Amino acid sequence: MAKNEFVKEIADIEENFPQWYTDVVVKTKLVDYGPVKGTMVIRPYGYAIWEHIQRELDRRFKEAGVENAYFPLLIPMSFMTKEAEHVEGFAPEVAVVTHAGGGKLEEPLVVRPTSETIIGHMYGKWVESWRDLPLRENQWCNVMRWEKTTRPFLRTSEFLWQEGHSVFASAEEAEEETLNMLALYREFAKTVLCMPVLTGRKTEKEKFAGAVATYGMEAMMHDGKSLQSGTTHYMGQNFAKAFGVQFTDKDGTLKYGYTMSYGVSTRLIGALIMTHGDQRGLVLPPPVAPVQVVIVPIAAKKEGVLEACNALKGRLQNAGVRVTLDDSDNSPGWKFNEWEMKGVPLRIELGPRDIEAGKLTVFRRDTCEKSEELLSDAETAVPNLLSQIGENLYAKAEKRMQERIRTVKSLEELLAGVEGGFVRAGWCGERACEDRVKEFAQATARVMDETHTESVCICCGKPAKHTVFFARAY
Amino acid sequence: MAKNEFVKEIADIEENFPQWYTDVVVKTKLVDYGPVKGTMVIRPYGYAIWEHIQRELDRRFKEAGVENAYFPLLIPMSFMTKEAEHVEGFAPEVAVVTHAGGGKLEEPLVVRPTSETIIGHMYGKWVESWRDLPLRENQWCNVMRWEKTTRPFLRTSEFLWQEGHSVFASAEEAEEETLNMLALYREFAKTVLCMPVLTGRKTEKEKFAGAVATYGMEAMMHDGKSLQSGTTHYMGQNFAKAFGVQFTDKDGTLKYGYTMSYGVSTRLIGALIMTHGDQRGLVLPPPVAPVQVVIVPIAAKKEGVLEACNALKGRLQNAGVRVTLDDSDNSPGWKFNEWEMKGVPLRIELGPRDIEAGKLTVFRRDTCEKSEELLSDAETAVPNLLSQIGENLYAKAEKRMQERIRTVKSLEELLAGVEGGFVRAGWCGERACEDRVKEFAQATARVMDETHTESVCICCGKPAKHTVFFARAY
Repeated sequence: MAKNEFVKEIADIEENFPQWYTDVVVKTKLVDYGPVKGTMVIRPYGYAIWEHIQRELDRRFKEAGVENAYFPLLIPMSFMTKEAEHVEGFAPEVAVVTHAGGGKLEEPLVVRPTSETIIGHMYGKWVESWRDLPLRENQWCNVMRWEKTTRPFLRTSEFLWQEGHSVFASAEEAEEETLNMLALYREFAKTVLCMPVLTGRKTEKEKFAGAVATYGMEAMMHDGKSLQSGTTHYMGQNFAKAFGVQFTDKDGTLKYGYTMSYGVSTRLIGALIMTHGDQRGLVLPPPVAPVQVVIVPIAAKKEGVLEACNALKGRLQNAGVRVTLDDSDNSPGWKFNEWEMKGVPLRIELGPRDIEAGKLTVFRRDTCEKSEELLSDAETAVPNLLSQIGENLYAKAEKRMQERIRTVKSLEELLAGVEGGFVRAGWCGERACEDRVKEFAQATARVMDETHTESVCICCGKPAKHTVFFARAY
Repeated sequence: MAKNEFVKEIADIEENFPQWYTDVVVKTKLVDYGPVKGTMVIRPYGYAIWEHIQRELDRRFKEAGVENAYFPLLIPMSFMTKEAEHVEGFAPEVAVVTHAGGGKLEEPLVVRPTSETIIGHMYGKWVESWRDLPLRENQWCNVMRWEKTTRPFLRTSEFLWQEGHSVFASAEEAEEETLNMLALYREFAKTVLCMPVLTGRKTEKEKFAGAVATYGMEAMMHDGKSLQSGTTHYMGQNFAKAFGVQFTDKDGTLKYGYTMSYGVSTRLIGALIMTHGDQRGLVLPPPVAPVQVVIVPIAAKKEGVLEACNALKGRLQNAGVRVTLDDSDNSPGWKFNEWEMKGVPLRIELGPRDIEAGKLTVFRRDTCEKSEELLSDAETAVPNLLSQIGENLYAKAEKRMQERIRTVKSLEELLAGVEGGFVRAGWCGERACEDRVKEFAQATARVMDETHTESVCICCGKPAKHTVFFARAY
């Protein structure tokens, strides 16, 4: 297959970004559609990315003192109704088990859309004294939210995620944990996904059903739209009161705990694809790339070439690099295209001339440029290049994001700004003005800007209480 | 709390083993009961064991070339009926989603009890040519089987497991993989769980619904009953035909693939508890123990004691040991009891006299004996002791199992033999005789003995086709 034929398989990233996304995720075998509408199968190449995300996040949670546990999938319907806002938010999109074991159930059971209720119930059983606090657990699991419009990774009826749930004795501690976990996500997004994010508090309209305050991290995709990539929620005593999470404090009095929760999902895979991808396909950040380096032999049948490639592969494996050798019968050009589409960060070409000169030719997926390294230096040069690629991916995405954030003073400017980027605008704090922005520009309040520099509301002209990042969002 | 009071919290292991089990799993906080009947919450101390099991098995699967993936939770009801035996076996125990997103579904969806059907459907889409084979994927997930009688870890309506599913071009390769995975499980049980098992083929009556042949590994519990701890299934072309898993072979003809599957679950946690536990509580095998070593300071308030304990903890952590220091205000005796109940393999007692003498006192949970080691040798002595403990746990369990396996020649001997052990008996191969054993002795055929030494059937006296291990089972 000639190079241009290969590239033709993927829609043009500038002309039809949604189709580009679908083409890329399916053709690189990250994912496939499940038999039930709105479900996805995460294929090995996609699941390996998730495993790296899990490993990196899990280590951070454990270092922070959070412990993993597992709570049941099925939640009694009556639990959902104990927190009024919560049921209103989630009831329309739950899947319900009504029959089991050959008969009708006395009470319908909800397939968890999130686990505040069932974990609240268990915490209510476990927490008795101030000595039991803080209680900080996390689970890695599947959740289900029945969605009308679905897209692989971005919005599917079932997805995988982690959900952390903590109880503290005081509001201050719970609020601090809410911000700490947001900071943890932000650092993770930067270091592991090489993805810049905006973080901040959500408006009342956009907050989690049942929360006092929700904080989000938003990433700018290739087309300038925003993708909510992680959230943390401070619940106050809402769920503690609904589920009787009470403790005897040091002073002997019985008090309700303060809870918070936080989660990220397989959506992050969609986020990194739409942040870093280009016309050739995926561009995977080295920390999560299932294959970090592919070695392509040149003139593979010449004596010594495959041996040299295998030796190099062994050396790189020993240096902790995830490396594969493509010794298939395909032509080098075909291999170049395929591994570029699959987003492998670094390609090494090794042929008779390289071997003779003691060099290797490297192709960086992020810059699409070639250079040479000393073959004898591979163990240090390759990890260094991978680090540079990660840093460059972050810098490029950060530059694009900053260039496409405009501070605007009118709805017309806002409309122009959200076609391809984010805007920063003043807001009076009234729901009516937030709704008006949505209606006028199909844009929503993503997070509030902590620096708050704007003086008047973009809609009504009254004094601004907040400065808000507005964007169109996935 | 005095020592005997503490022990009183757990029922007597010899007098009431079922109650001992329930007491131990709940009091050591491995698990709690979920709000829906038959469900369990796996608490951090239990989940950490599962994480070690996962890590060890996952590494073995990956080394064998198996890749992880994730398939949807919900399976169209119509899939279940495509393989006649499969639906008969699983239909009575499935949970069914009938409503979602606020409306009734056109087709009810089954919460996966196992995923042969949905994975068969996807493999049918993916497999086209002999070049696509073998296809070997595994998933770590939750499954649901609505059970009438449930017990934490052993039998719960929802449990966690791994299920591997492979397609091969030939029957021979699929059968080989079925035996290879059984061998992998057996080695894992020995090395990681320190648990001896009997492995072999299951009878037609006991095989997986839809399989051509099922192989099982069976472990003997403290009370002499058997616990099925893992199974591998050779499916022939049953599922390939039901789901159209076809490939064009090298000769250009279209053929059906041969499939197999294999799985182990959180049941393994129950297995290791009932294999190694004793009157004091849990006895955890070092490879999966969340805490391998607990350091208990003696006369903790004396100058230098806590410092020495902390220094030792740091040295052991650097040596890769999972170690905790119990510097709580409880008395040493209370701590001894608690950590013994929690099954920590090794306790180190460190007090002023030990420090002065340059020694440490170690208590082995497996033998309940104390000895002394040089403090300066801790980095090598402690890992060595942990290895010895693992080997001893295996040897003890192996000895008990061998002592309690009797070869029997009559139903009366069989009945006596299964009260506290396994029996080996001849069997003609007829279902009627297998049913008769069940009726007479409440024992089932666990696996067939590959050595096959018996000449006549224990029931009918006709020539024996197989020698079978019969036992009562969980």
